[in-house]
Amino acid sequence: MRITVLAGGVGAARFLRGLKAAAPGARITVIGNTGDDITLCGLRVCPDLDTVMYTLGGGISEEQGWGRAGETFTVAGELAAYGGDTPWFTLGDKDFATHIMRTKLLAEGKPLSEVTRMLCERWRPGVRLLPMSDDVVETHVHLDDGPVVHFQEWWVRLHATVPARAIVPHGAAEATPAPGVLEAIANADFILFPPSNPVVSIGPILAVPGIREAVAAKTVVGVSGIIGGAPVRGMADACLTAIGVETSATAVAAHYGAGLLDGWLVDEQDKAAADDPALAPIAVRALPLYMRDLATTTVIARASVDLAQELSMEPNG
Amino acid sequence: MRITVLAGGVGAARFLRGLKAAAPGARITVIGNTGDDITLCGLRVCPDLDTVMYTLGGGISEEQGWGRAGETFTVAGELAAYGGDTPWFTLGDKDFATHIMRTKLLAEGKPLSEVTRMLCERWRPGVRLLPMSDDVVETHVHLDDGPVVHFQEWWVRLHATVPARAIVPHGAAEATPAPGVLEAIANADFILFPPSNPVVSIGPILAVPGIREAVAAKTVVGVSGIIGGAPVRGMADACLTAIGVETSATAVAAHYGAGLLDGWLVDEQDKAAADDPALAPIAVRALPLYMRDLATTTVIARASVDLAQELSMEPNG
Repeated sequence: MRITVLAGGVGAARFLRGLKAAAPGARITVIGNTGDDITLCGLRVCPDLDTVMYTLGGGISEEQGWGRAGETFTVAGELAAYGGDTPWFTLGDKDFATHIMRTKLLAEGKPLSEVTRMLCERWRPGVRLLPMSDDVVETHVHLDDGPVVHFQEWWVRLHATVPARAIVPHGAAEATPAPGVLEAIANADFILFPPSNPVVSIGPILAVPGIREAVAAKTVVGVSGIIGGAPVRGMADACLTAIGVETSATAVAAHYGAGLLDGWLVDEQDKAAADDPALAPIAVRALPLYMRDLATTTVIARASVDLAQELSMEPNG
Repeated sequence: MRITVLAGGVGAARFLRGLKAAAPGARITVIGNTGDDITLCGLRVCPDLDTVMYTLGGGISEEQGWGRAGETFTVAGELAAYGGDTPWFTLGDKDFATHIMRTKLLAEGKPLSEVTRMLCERWRPGVRLLPMSDDVVETHVHLDDGPVVHFQEWWVRLHATVPARAIVPHGAAEATPAPGVLEAIANADFILFPPSNPVVSIGPILAVPGIREAVAAKTVVGVSGIIGGAPVRGMADACLTAIGVETSATAVAAHYGAGLLDGWLVDEQDKAAADDPALAPIAVRALPLYMRDLATTTVIARASVDLAQELSMEPNG
C-alpha cells in the first residue's frame, strides 16, 4: 500500500505516528509544508519538516510537540547577548545543530529535498519525507492594520492575536514541486490530509502549481483539525477567519471542496456534518478525533485508511 | 600614548591583558592574525580574533587559554550525529553563537573588520581589534610527505607531529590590509610583537602587502615566545623547523631581523642573546618572561613599553 500524506507540523507528525502503527506495511511519503520556513541568524529553519522528522525519529519534545527533547538554550542566550535579531524565536542547542547542518548543505548548493534526505539518514523516520518544493515559499500574513509579516512573526511573536486580512504563500506561484512530489501523489493508492492547519499547513502545499491538480485526481481523505468549533491545537481559527472561513469541521471540508476531498473524518460532536448537504458528495464519518496517545491516534489513522480504501473501490474514487 | 600590537592567539591575548594594566591610559590597537581562520560546518571561525576578544572581554576559559569559560558541547555532539565534517575541531555551544553571528553578518556583506567591531560591542575588550585583512588568508601547511593542509588540520588534528616543509599564508599576497590597519601602524608611537608564534601568528600579518613596510618604519619591540630553546606554549618549534629556523630566542629575533625589530625581550636564561653579534643592532633586554599571572605579565608588558619608549628617543628609533 502506498500512502501519500500532506503534512504540516505537530498535528501531522502525531497523526503520522499513528499511521505508521495503523498501516505497518505501507510505503508512506510525506509532503511537508515549507511555507513556515524562516532564516534566523543566517540559519535556515524548516519547522514543519523538522517536527515530522524529530517526531517519527524519536527526538521530539513530547511536551511541546515541536523541538527536541531535553533542550538547553545556551546558543540562543549568547545570540541575544550579541543583539540577535529575532529574540521572539528561541531555538534550542540541539535544534541549532540541525539548522547549522541544513544551512551548510544548502550553501553547498544541494536542494532542500536532498538536504532533507541527508538529515533523515540520521533520524530514520520510517517515511519518505519530501519538502513540497525546493524553491523558497514563505507564508506572509497581511495584517488588518497594514503591514505584511512573515507567518512566524505573526504566529510566534504576535501569537496570531493581531487580526489578518489575508494569508498568502509568497513565492508559491513561481515554485516547482520538489523532485518526487508529483510522482508520490500520482503513484499513491490514496492521499491523506492529517489534522493540519488548512490555511497555513495544507494550503501552501496545494498552492504549488501542479500539486492541487495531482491530489484532486486521487482519492483524498482528510481528518478535521477542528473539533466542536475550535482547533484542537494551535490557532487555526485565526487563520480561517483571515481567509473568511468559519471555524468548523464542516466549513473546513467545504473550503477544501468536493473537487479535492472524497472523505472527511470529523469528531463525534461534529457528526451533523455527515448530513450537511453543503458537503455532498464528500463521505463524512464521525469518530473520536482527539489524538490523546498513540493508541487513539492509531485508531483515527486506521479509520482514515479504511475510508480511503472504501472510497477507492467506488467508481468515482 | 598610542600602541599598536600584532597579535596571534593565547600568548598575545595574555600579553595584552598585561599591557592594558601596564599602560592604562594608552590607546591600543590590535591587529589580529586571521590566517588561522577556518570555515567549519559553514560557519566562519576566527580563533585568534576570538581569543583576544574573549580574553580582554572577560569571557575566556582561563584553563584552556582559548574558548569560552563554562562551555557545553551539545551542538558539536549533534553535528557529529549528523556526520559533521570536522570532528577533530570541537567548538563549545557559547563559541558557536559567536560563529553563527559572525557568519550571518558576513553573509549580509559586511567585511570582517566591521563584523569584528560589532562583536566587540558586546565584549568591550578595551582595545581596538582589527583583523589584518578583510580578505581571506588561510595558512597552509605543506607536509613533508606531500599533501597541503589547512593550518588548523595540521595543528589540531595532527598536533603538528607530521613534519612540514613549508608554511604558507595562502592568499596573503593578494590581500589588502583591513581599513585602519596601516593608519594604526603609522600613527602608533611604537609597535609591539607579543610572544606570539612568529611563523603562524605574526608571520601571516607581516605577509599582507604593505604591513611589513609600515611596521619596519616604526620602533618595534618584540617579546620572545621561546624560552630556553622551547616554546612557552604551543608548538612553535614545529613551525620554526618547517621554515628552517632554530628554536631559540636569538634565532627568532634574527628571523624577524634588524630591519624590523628594534628591541627584543628575552628571558633571563636566554640573556646571552644580548651579546650575540648576530642580533646587532637590536637592543636585547633579559628579564623573567613567563606570564604566570597578571602581575608578572604586567611587568613584562611594562618592560616592552619602556624599551620601546627608550628606543623611540634614539635618533634611529
